[in-house]
Amino acid sequence: MNTAIDNPSNNGSLRTLTIDLGERSYPIYIGRNILEASLLAKHLGKGRVLVVSNETVAPLLRPSLDAMLSGRDYNVLQLPDGEIHKNLDILNEIYSFLLAHNYDRSCTLIACGGGVVGDITGFAAATYQRGVNYIQIPTTLLAQVDSSVGGKTAVNHALGKNMIGAFYQPLCVISDTAVLESLPPRELSAGLAEVIKYGLIRDSGFTQWLEDNIGALLAREHGALVHAIEHSCRTKAAIVASDEREQGIRALLNLGHTFGHAIETHTGYSSWLHGEAVGAGMAMAAEFSRRRGWLKIEDVMRTRGLIRAAQLPLAPPAGMTADNFLKHMQRDKKVQNGRIRLVLLKAIGDAVITDEYPAELLREFLQSATAPAQ
Amino acid sequence: MNTAIDNPSNNGSLRTLTIDLGERSYPIYIGRNILEASLLAKHLGKGRVLVVSNETVAPLLRPSLDAMLSGRDYNVLQLPDGEIHKNLDILNEIYSFLLAHNYDRSCTLIACGGGVVGDITGFAAATYQRGVNYIQIPTTLLAQVDSSVGGKTAVNHALGKNMIGAFYQPLCVISDTAVLESLPPRELSAGLAEVIKYGLIRDSGFTQWLEDNIGALLAREHGALVHAIEHSCRTKAAIVASDEREQGIRALLNLGHTFGHAIETHTGYSSWLHGEAVGAGMAMAAEFSRRRGWLKIEDVMRTRGLIRAAQLPLAPPAGMTADNFLKHMQRDKKVQNGRIRLVLLKAIGDAVITDEYPAELLREFLQSATAPAQ
Repeated sequence: MNTAIDNPSNNGSLRTLTIDLGERSYPIYIGRNILEASLLAKHLGKGRVLVVSNETVAPLLRPSLDAMLSGRDYNVLQLPDGEIHKNLDILNEIYSFLLAHNYDRSCTLIACGGGVVGDITGFAAATYQRGVNYIQIPTTLLAQVDSSVGGKTAVNHALGKNMIGAFYQPLCVISDTAVLESLPPRELSAGLAEVIKYGLIRDSGFTQWLEDNIGALLAREHGALVHAIEHSCRTKAAIVASDEREQGIRALLNLGHTFGHAIETHTGYSSWLHGEAVGAGMAMAAEFSRRRGWLKIEDVMRTRGLIRAAQLPLAPPAGMTADNFLKHMQRDKKVQNGRIRLVLLKAIGDAVITDEYPAELLREFLQSATAPAQ
Repeated sequence: MNTAIDNPSNNGSLRTLTIDLGERSYPIYIGRNILEASLLAKHLGKGRVLVVSNETVAPLLRPSLDAMLSGRDYNVLQLPDGEIHKNLDILNEIYSFLLAHNYDRSCTLIACGGGVVGDITGFAAATYQRGVNYIQIPTTLLAQVDSSVGGKTAVNHALGKNMIGAFYQPLCVISDTAVLESLPPRELSAGLAEVIKYGLIRDSGFTQWLEDNIGALLAREHGALVHAIEHSCRTKAAIVASDEREQGIRALLNLGHTFGHAIETHTGYSSWLHGEAVGAGMAMAAEFSRRRGWLKIEDVMRTRGLIRAAQLPLAPPAGMTADNFLKHMQRDKKVQNGRIRLVLLKAIGDAVITDEYPAELLREFLQSATAPAQ
């Protein structure tokens, strides 16, 4: 992966990371107030453009989008907001819009929103007429540090999260930190869950930096945000470049996600944000790593402390049982020949993917983790 | 592309073509009574197997399938039969079955049926958990010579055929000529439409062979069928190997398909078989090629004669208008920046893809082609 500093006309602080995937390589642009026509023009062809956004983001960013796309043939499609709408029905609405407006294979889709908009738009681009171009403009911290990097696209099924999807890379990603200023606090914390994850899986130094700067991040200090976003994207990009289709180490990015997806599926993708479920899931993974004999109690406490400091939940939702967890975890994409593989921690900064634990230990752990507080 | 002659235990005439696509290369096996466990065992891993078939084919082939999969963990899912069912709702039934039965990423889907089953199962495999293995057992002539070769997978949308899909290659294709014995005559003719296409687009010698052997093919003579299937797969394989994602010459395989898809969409995918629509579409493409100033009248007559001899229709359905055609043709995947590109013939065996014709000439042609017979 290469990092270059670029200097567009009206902005001296645009940073460019390149995701190195051979002929599917693409740049991630990070900066403040960088939603401008000149940047987009590097990547858009002559074809028509459909901006897919949601009812929350579109009204806020419409002036910027109109300015960026001035003179082009484009439409803006507003989806309903929320993970519960990341499904085949809404996907079909995108297809119907494209077909009803005679969009051909030369078109480009632009995903302008959070992870939900990015995932569903990416999957629409991967499958409309067997594949058209797309660009990501992530508008949440979570999307900027995670879902816009790496080419995973998906929709949910009633029986499991992200069960339908494709690996499909965008032409570029444009992450503007200015759009984070209007982000609700819960969304900011949800994004921090994924940032924390990168430290826990392979960088104890970054974990230390987060412990020192969590307050600055919650206060949305620009310098802290840029550092967190760039470091997160760089970490994910390095992992994805070495394992695009998740045959090996890419699975480490799922720390906290097996427990987290079970929480999301159990609660119907409606009450918990993805990052909140990942926060609780990482706290559970840390504790189970300790019971498995790996993580020291002090490191479990540090992990929980950082998750708590980011204003994320540490425990699963009230009323969810061990059986609820196991039912959903059996359908995790990392399951191989019936064995649930988990991402666990040997230390802070050292994650492994493993199915080497007693099944009974997992059940006992889930029973204690879901027991009502005394 | 390589051809090798293989000798399994109980069959001396198994032929193997290799589709050369780098790390996505795969073999096509052609022969009589070759649905056997030893051939499948070369490609199946340890994971579970889901055979996707339809209500017509599954009862006929169930004994062979059970024998092939004996000792393995498998299910057979029967879809309703017909192009009208190649849609997102039926696709979702496949996903639901897989999830309800806890199929994980190590599973293999086997498509056992015609083009509809192959296309929808291939797309399910391309997108279930972002991609699982699949194998094609095509049971119609059309699927054996066309839809099982080349990795195009798709479902239809109410506004257009094959508008949702992916390029995704199987582990192998097993084409057993014995299964063609029970094929209805209309289905046999529909398959011959695609066979005729290969001659028209790049092989006048094969066209001559077809003119001499169309009777033997309609009589299902084994030697003639094997030659037609092998030659067709070889032609398609060579084209696909040089242009997997249809950036260039692969589009030639769409001779007759732009007109044909319009017929299918207009008639709701219910009354015309795909091959029948392609037959009429090729007759239309030949006549329009003549009006464009390319194809000689004698070659138009030869083309029509061969299509008629294969017991395929030469004209669009009664009542379909020029406007009906143009509306659907505007949504063809080959449309670029609003221009309808057509595959036309300069001679028998010499096809080109072009948008270089007067729009008015196309409209006039469609008006005369759709005028009620005197």
